[in-house]
Amino acid sequence: MERTSLGDVSAPGRLADHGEGISEEELALAARNHGLPLEAMRHDVTPAGLHYVLVHYDIPATDEDTWRLSVGGRVRTPLELSLAELRAMSAVTHRVTMECAGNGRARLTPRPVSQPWLVEAVGTADWTGVPLRDVLAAAGVGDGAVEAVFTGADHGVERGVEQDYRRSLPLPVEAEVLLAYAMNGGPLPPQHGHPLRLVVPGWYGMASVKWLRRIDVVDAPFTGFQQAVAYRYRQSPDDPGEPVTRIAPRALLIPPGFPDFMSRARVVRPGPVVLAGRAWSGYGPVTRVEVSADDGRTWTDAEVTARGPHRWGWQSWHTTWDATAGRHVLTARASDAEGRTQPLEQPWNRGGFGNNAVQRVPVLCQGGQD
Amino acid sequence: MERTSLGDVSAPGRLADHGEGISEEELALAARNHGLPLEAMRHDVTPAGLHYVLVHYDIPATDEDTWRLSVGGRVRTPLELSLAELRAMSAVTHRVTMECAGNGRARLTPRPVSQPWLVEAVGTADWTGVPLRDVLAAAGVGDGAVEAVFTGADHGVERGVEQDYRRSLPLPVEAEVLLAYAMNGGPLPPQHGHPLRLVVPGWYGMASVKWLRRIDVVDAPFTGFQQAVAYRYRQSPDDPGEPVTRIAPRALLIPPGFPDFMSRARVVRPGPVVLAGRAWSGYGPVTRVEVSADDGRTWTDAEVTARGPHRWGWQSWHTTWDATAGRHVLTARASDAEGRTQPLEQPWNRGGFGNNAVQRVPVLCQGGQD
Repeated sequence: MERTSLGDVSAPGRLADHGEGISEEELALAARNHGLPLEAMRHDVTPAGLHYVLVHYDIPATDEDTWRLSVGGRVRTPLELSLAELRAMSAVTHRVTMECAGNGRARLTPRPVSQPWLVEAVGTADWTGVPLRDVLAAAGVGDGAVEAVFTGADHGVERGVEQDYRRSLPLPVEAEVLLAYAMNGGPLPPQHGHPLRLVVPGWYGMASVKWLRRIDVVDAPFTGFQQAVAYRYRQSPDDPGEPVTRIAPRALLIPPGFPDFMSRARVVRPGPVVLAGRAWSGYGPVTRVEVSADDGRTWTDAEVTARGPHRWGWQSWHTTWDATAGRHVLTARASDAEGRTQPLEQPWNRGGFGNNAVQRVPVLCQGGQD
Repeated sequence: MERTSLGDVSAPGRLADHGEGISEEELALAARNHGLPLEAMRHDVTPAGLHYVLVHYDIPATDEDTWRLSVGGRVRTPLELSLAELRAMSAVTHRVTMECAGNGRARLTPRPVSQPWLVEAVGTADWTGVPLRDVLAAAGVGDGAVEAVFTGADHGVERGVEQDYRRSLPLPVEAEVLLAYAMNGGPLPPQHGHPLRLVVPGWYGMASVKWLRRIDVVDAPFTGFQQAVAYRYRQSPDDPGEPVTRIAPRALLIPPGFPDFMSRARVVRPGPVVLAGRAWSGYGPVTRVEVSADDGRTWTDAEVTARGPHRWGWQSWHTTWDATAGRHVLTARASDAEGRTQPLEQPWNRGGFGNNAVQRVPVLCQGGQD
C-alpha cells in the first residue's frame, strides 16, 4: 500500500529564491482571499465584500440555529450558549480597523512564501456583539487561569500539522474584546465568521478567531501552532521570536486620478490634486501623517482628523498636492501617540509579519500645456 | 519640461516568458479582484462578497439619489431615467451564473499577462431590474439601428488608450438582458455596479457593464477598445480574432475533505466521499457531468440536477467516490445540450479568454488501516 503522510501535501515554510516570481500556490491564495480595493477607503465603514478576507482553511458550513458556543476549562460554570442567548445579553458596537498580520509580505526581500499581500489587507467594520469579559464573568474564571483559548470551526493542515484554527489571549481580557454576531448591522457574512467570531480591536486579524465555537480557560500559556509556531517575529527558523500582537501604524492613500488597468499606475492632470486616505495604529491614535510626492525625499504634513468616538477605527487625513507634468511617486507615513512611525525600509522577518513600510503610488501627471 | 505619454504607464499586452512567475503587476490585480472560494459553491446563490469581482479601473464613487441613466442616439425619445423611475417599471429577477472571460488564464502556457485567474472567477446571483428591451421600447429604437452601446462610470487607461468602460450588444436584444438595480434582494454593492448595471445572462462578464450611466443606440457596429481590441479570441497580435460572447461549459467541484493552507491540496479519509459541485454553460443546459479520480484517465457519470426554473443559473451535480489511501487528482467535465464538452487541454489564445479546461484537485487520502 502506498504510504502517505500529511507532509506530502504540506511543506515547511520557505523563502522565495532571488528573483522568483509569485508561485501558483501563492496565486491560489491571492485568488481566494482579497484585499481592500484602495479607492474603497472613501467609505468610513467598509461595505460588505470590500473588507479584506484571509481564510486559513475552508469557510466552514455553519447553521446559526444550531450553533453553540462552549465555554469550559477552568471556569466555575461551563456554558453552552446559543446565538439567541448571546443576543439576549447586553450588546455593544465597536468600529474597528482590522489588518492582516501578513500585510506587506509580498514586498519583502527575500519574500516569505505565504498569502502574498502587497498593502491592501485592511478594512473597517462596525462589529456588534457581547463583550467577552461578560461571558467569562458569567462562566466564572477559576483561580490560576492565565489565558483563554479560542477555537474556530475551520479545520485544515499547515506545515504538516492538522488542526482547528486556534488562538489565545491573556487574562484578564481587555474590555473592548467582542464576541461579535453582526457586521455593519447585518449578520456576519460566511467569510467573516458567520455566525460568531472574536474581534480583538487593535490587534492584527489572526487574534480575531472566526466561526468561534469554543472558549477554554487554561492555567498555562497556550502553545498551539498559530500561537507558538506561526505568527511570531523570527529572524531564522530556530529563533523563538516575539509574538505578533498589535497593529503597527500605517497610512494608506487613496490613489488619485485614474488608473492604468495593468500597472495600476495613476494618471492625474496638472494643478491642485487632493490627496486623502486613512491611517491607523493598534497602539494609540495617529497624531501625524506626512505625505511625499518625491518618493520620500521631502515630506509635508497632512491634516489628520481626530479619532473621535471610534477609538479602534481608522482616521482620515488629507492634503493638497500641486501636480506638475512628469512622473512622481506618492507616499504617506503615519506616526502614533506612542512614538511609532512607519519605516521607509522593510523590517524583514521570516514570516513576513507586521511590515508597515510605506506605500508607493506611481503617478503620471499629464496634459495641460506641455 | 519632462515629456510624458500614457504609454509611460500603460504597456502593450504581452505573454509571460517561459518559466516567468506571476509578476507584481498581476499580483496587484489578484489582490484587488477575487474569485469564488470554491467551498462557497455550497450556496445555491452566492452570498455578497463571495461572488467573483473583476474591476477594470477603479470602483467609481456613485450617488443613487442623483444617478441618471441616459438613453440616446438613434431613438425617437431620448430618456434620462432616475433609479426611482426605473424601480417604478415592471421588475423581473433572474438567477444568473456569471463568469469572467479570463477565467483559467493563469493556467495557460505561455501565460497572457493580465488578471491571473485560475478557475474561480464565477458566481451566481439573483439580479433584479428592468428588462433592457422595455427601456429601449420606451425610447423607441429608430430605423437602421444595429447595436446598443453601454457606458459605465469607470474610467482608466488600458494599453495606452484612455477610456470609459464601454461595450455593445446587437439589436434586437434578448428578452433576458436586464438593467439591474438589486443583487440577492439588496442594493448593488459598490463593486458590482452600484447603483445600476447591465446583466447579460449566458455571456461572459465583460458584457454586463457596471455603473451604467448611458445607452447609445447606433447604426454601425461599435469598434471601441473593449469590443474591437480586447475580448477577442486571437492567435497573434495581428489576428482580428472572433469576439468573446457566451460562456463555454464548465464543471467545478467543491474540493472535498479539508485543505492544506499553502498548497490547497485536500486531505480525505478512506471510504465513500461525496463529490459535488456546480456546472453551467451559456449555450444551453448542462446535460452531463463526468468525474475522474485518476486525473482524467477514467470517468464516471455524476447525477446532474435539471435546470429547473433558473434558466441562467448553474446546476448541481454529485457522485460518490470510494477513496483509497494514496494521492489522487480529482477532475470533472461538463457537456451541454448544444454538444459542447470541456477540454482536457487548454485551448490557447493570446488574451487568455474562455479557457474552460478541466479543474484539477490534488487529494491525499490518508488514515484508516495503512
